Order: sequence, then C-alpha cells, then structure tokens
Amino acid sequence: MIPTIEWQENYVRMVDQRKLPRKVEWVTCRGYKDVIRAIQNMVIRGAPAIGVAAAMGMALGARSIRVKDPQAFIKRLQDIGRRMRDARPTAVNLRWAVERMLSLAKEYADRPAQEIKERLQEESQRILNEDIESNRTMGRNGAALVPQGAVILTHCNAGALATGGYGTALGVIRAAHERHKDIRVIADETRPWLQGLRLTAYELMADGIPVSVIADNAAGSLMRQKKIDLIITGADRIAANGDVANKIGTYQVAVLARTHKIPFYVAAPVSTIDPTLPNGDQIPVEERDPREIHTLGQTQLGPPQVIALNPAFDITPSKYVSAIITEKGVIRPPYRRAIRALF
Amino acid sequence: MIPTIEWQENYVRMVDQRKLPRKVEWVTCRGYKDVIRAIQNMVIRGAPAIGVAAAMGMALGARSIRVKDPQAFIKRLQDIGRRMRDARPTAVNLRWAVERMLSLAKEYADRPAQEIKERLQEESQRILNEDIESNRTMGRNGAALVPQGAVILTHCNAGALATGGYGTALGVIRAAHERHKDIRVIADETRPWLQGLRLTAYELMADGIPVSVIADNAAGSLMRQKKIDLIITGADRIAANGDVANKIGTYQVAVLARTHKIPFYVAAPVSTIDPTLPNGDQIPVEERDPREIHTLGQTQLGPPQVIALNPAFDITPSKYVSAIITEKGVIRPPYRRAIRALF
Repeated sequence: MIPTIEWQENYVRMVDQRKLPRKVEWVTCRGYKDVIRAIQNMVIRGAPAIGVAAAMGMALGARSIRVKDPQAFIKRLQDIGRRMRDARPTAVNLRWAVERMLSLAKEYADRPAQEIKERLQEESQRILNEDIESNRTMGRNGAALVPQGAVILTHCNAGALATGGYGTALGVIRAAHERHKDIRVIADETRPWLQGLRLTAYELMADGIPVSVIADNAAGSLMRQKKIDLIITGADRIAANGDVANKIGTYQVAVLARTHKIPFYVAAPVSTIDPTLPNGDQIPVEERDPREIHTLGQTQLGPPQVIALNPAFDITPSKYVSAIITEKGVIRPPYRRAIRALF
Repeated sequence: MIPTIEWQENYVRMVDQRKLPRKVEWVTCRGYKDVIRAIQNMVIRGAPAIGVAAAMGMALGARSIRVKDPQAFIKRLQDIGRRMRDARPTAVNLRWAVERMLSLAKEYADRPAQEIKERLQEESQRILNEDIESNRTMGRNGAALVPQGAVILTHCNAGALATGGYGTALGVIRAAHERHKDIRVIADETRPWLQGLRLTAYELMADGIPVSVIADNAAGSLMRQKKIDLIITGADRIAANGDVANKIGTYQVAVLARTHKIPFYVAAPVSTIDPTLPNGDQIPVEERDPREIHTLGQTQLGPPQVIALNPAFDITPSKYVSAIITEKGVIRPPYRRAIRALF
C-alpha cells in the first residue's frame, strides 16, 4: 500500500485522498498550517490518520518557533496545538495526539529548543509506528470474531489510508484474510465522499481480498436476504459508555444489523476512546459544506440553490454495538466498566 | 412543471430525466422501439410514467403495423406488447398498460385497422389523463394523514416526473402544501441515480415547497434526532399481501421508521398493485449495470475493474407499511383483505 503520511527530510507528505484512486498525488506540508488545511480539506482523513497528521503538524509547528525561552516556547506550541485540535471537531485522536505532543514538550521544557524539536519529531514518528502496531494487534484480536467464509459489510474507509497503515476495520479484515478465512467484503460506497468506493475497494483490491461495492441504499436489502454475516466499521470517537461516533450512515447500518440479528463490531485503537464524555450525545458532530452533496468536482448535480444537510458523522448508541475491538483486547457490554478497565 | 411525456403530431416526446435538472432536453420516440429504449435507459422512469410510456409506445407500434387482417394485426400488436412489457421487469404498471391496450385492440378487432390505431392513441392519452387524475385524488386522500407543520422524508422521486403529472408521494406532499399545512420535505438523494437530489428537489423547489436534500446515509440519524415526522414513498409494484417493491433503499428507510416509531406511508395508484403475486418475494428485482455505481458521466469514481452490485429495487414487507394511499382510498393492514376489496 501507498503510505498514508510520512515525514520527509524537512516536510511531511500525505497522499491526497480526495483524488484516489484516479490519481496518486502527494500534498507537501512544510508548516503546521499546511497540515491543518490538509485535515480540514480531507486530503487526509480517518481518525487515527489525522491523529498522526496532527502529531507531525505539531512537530513542524515546533520547528517554526523562533523563541528560545522555554516558557515562551511552550506557550507558542500550545497556541499551535489549539489550532491543530480545532481543525476538525469529531475525531478525538486529533486532541489526543496534540496533548501527547504537548506533554512531551513540557517534559523536556528545560532542554534546548533544538532538542525539544527533535524529540517532538521522533514522538510523531513513534505515534505513527505505534498506530500501525496497534492496528496489527487489533487485527489479531478481531480476526477471532470472523467465521470461516464470512461475508463482511464495512462502511466508509477504516483502512490503511485512515490510519498509519494496515487499518482498524480493514485491519481485522486483512488479518482474517491472512489467516485464510476465505472472506468476502461488501463495501458501502459511503456518500457523500465515496470513501468505500474510492478507498476501501482500492485497498482491498490491492491486497487481493474479494470486494464488491454497493450503494449505501442496498445494505438493508442484502441483510434481509441473509447475504451479510457480520459488520465491522471504524470509529471517530467512542464515549465512556461505548456510544460510537463514526461516518454518517454507520448508525443506520447498526440498527439494520440489530433488526437482522447480525453482529455489528467496531474496531478502534484506545486513542479513539474519549473517557471524558459520559455518552455519545456529547460528541460534537461536524456539519460539512453542502456542496459535498450536490456537486461532484466541477459538476453541479442538483438544482441551483438546492439546500443540503451534510452531517459528516452520526452517533451509534452502544446498545447496537456487539463488541469493540481494540489493541488491548475485545470489549463487550457493559461498556462503561470495560472501558474504565482499559484506562 | 415540465410535462413528463406527451403525444405530439406523430411522435411521442419525453423530457430526458437523466439530464435534469441541468438540461431540459427532449427525446423523440417515433416508433415503439424508441420507447422501449427510453424506458430501459431511464430517459423516463417511475412506475406510473413508464406505464404511460408503454401505452403510447403501443399506440406508436400499432401505427407501424401494415397488415390489414384483424387477427394478424392483433398478433403483431401482441408481439410488440411482449417486447414492451419486458423493457424493465419490476414496475407492474408496464404490464398493466400493455394489457389494457391489447384488450382495447381486441375489443375493436372487427373494425378497420385505421380505427383501431386511432382508438389506441386515444386510449394512451386517456391512461395519461387518468393517471394525473388519480394522483390528485391520491393527494387528497393522503393529505389527511399529514399533520400541520410536519417534516416529511421521501425517497427517490415519486413526483410529477415519475407519473403522468402531479405525483404519487409528491402528490400527497403537494396536496398537503396546497392545504397550507406548512410542511417541510427532506429528500434522500437516492443513489445511484440521485433522483431525490436531481428530480424531487427540482420539482419541489419549482412549487415553492421547502426541501432539503441529504445523503441516504443521514436518514437514520435524522430519525434518531426526531427530525422526521413521517415518511412517504411511491411504489413500483405492490403484492397481494401489501409487500412493496420500490427504489433500492426504501426497505431500510421503512425498517428505520419502525425502529423510531415514525409512520411509513406508500402512495401508489391501484395500477401498481399486482394481485397475482401472493407476496413481495415473487416480485422480480432488476439488477442494473454496475457502472451506475462506479462511474458518473465520463468519470470513473472507483478503482478500474471494481465490482459493484446494483439492485435497482428492494422489497419492503407489508408489516413495515403503516398505510397505502391509493386513488380509491387509504388502506391499512391487514392488506390482503383490503387489496382484495379494491379489485
């Protein structure tokens, strides 16, 4: 697979996920503002991937700080952190990564600025490496839940491109495939951004994992026809009670799974869990530009001046979630207790 | 509104619904084969509208028959009818219209061919006029179910463009609006063809009825947030037990409506009911070209060689249907008895 994001000599580069799979183009970020813009414009997306991007953005930001005084340095880095954290509201990994970078900087506050800058860059690389490692562990943990010959529905893209590499939901799918489970995947195309059609299908085809794409509208009908055995999605934030914020459409897939008695699993690293929020209704849901619905590239699809509502995420109450697959193990209801035990 | 279909001097013209709302272009059908092609390619769509198109196509077909012998004439017309009926498999209005035209021809079999041809043309116009009239009656019947200030979700386009004019689901919405019920409409964009975004939004905006478009993925989340009061869709075929075939995605909207205790209504003329089928699982569901999913115009959206499944319809079991609104009244469960009483 193409690396989602990587540190180069003195800049960060990301593959432009808006253009995949038609074009493999790289976006170069030389400063933290470039990273914020890339996150906001969805050059890079997926909660763990934007966590990594934020960390690298913080490292880039630190390099641009000219003051030598430790307190002033930290204060400036905190300013950058605030802006980075606000790039998008829903995925908690963004905040998590910023806080981890800030606390490392504070730890080294008495050292020369140059050293802090180097430590921060190393730390951002460590966050990337850890993310890949935890995806692999998650994959191992989750593969046990996948029966031989299963047909797995997934929504959006929770793959290598949504993470440092390997993937959360697609990590579980990859691990099941590597264990010769003879699985097949059905990918919701996932409007409006079509991450399922553009990214999930692309990743799985590259790995030789059988995949078919459907319009999001067909998921329920396939479940009714018993053509889906289980569902795995990623998450953008998980509250302390196990409620899951994830790509718009996840909620209805989960409700349909319940109606049809199909297991609905969420795969996410512990960094996606936000133990500060008692339940999902406190998770901020980003409302994005309506043009994502009614235009495609330069093409206006609907009538001029049409009004569109474009929530980017929805909340799935934990009662619909059969299990949450993390790198620290598979947790099951009651989630509040299980999540407390993880921290 | 633009007329969906109309008989001109010696041809039939239809507005090209694949191009709306960006362009208003007309497709001219000079023979029955042009009509079959227009139905297959979705120049015209919507069960009642393709019923009208089939009737006009039969009239065009009759005009092309050169034999004078009545038996040979009828036989030739039956051949045309078979091909017309097979243009698309799911909407029963197609078969209904063909049979109505054939039985009229048989009634006049002892008259000169020229007279049969004229009668058939008149009959096709009568089918169009009756369809508009029954939509208006359906609207009146259905408007009573719409509370003041209601927010109504609809799926696909069951409007003037899907019928002779006025619409089935949108007919009820229009009638509620005309009665100053202060309604608002949420239109599912309805992938893959985007009939909701392209056609429903366009029709409602032209009539000054407030409408917002959403990705199909957002319907469940809006229901959970209590932002939808009722749902109205059209139908392509209704079995004798009230099971409904309609645009792919209807089934999951109906399941979600049930989960959220929201009424789910279907508006359809009696010609959409197929009393010969005991239940919905006998309704043939058309599988369309996968390119409808993974390309948009000239643009390939997904990876090359991606596999897509593209069922055009799904079956909603009658247990999810709160009521069926017809021109002969609103029927409620148990549907088998209510439907028998209609015929």
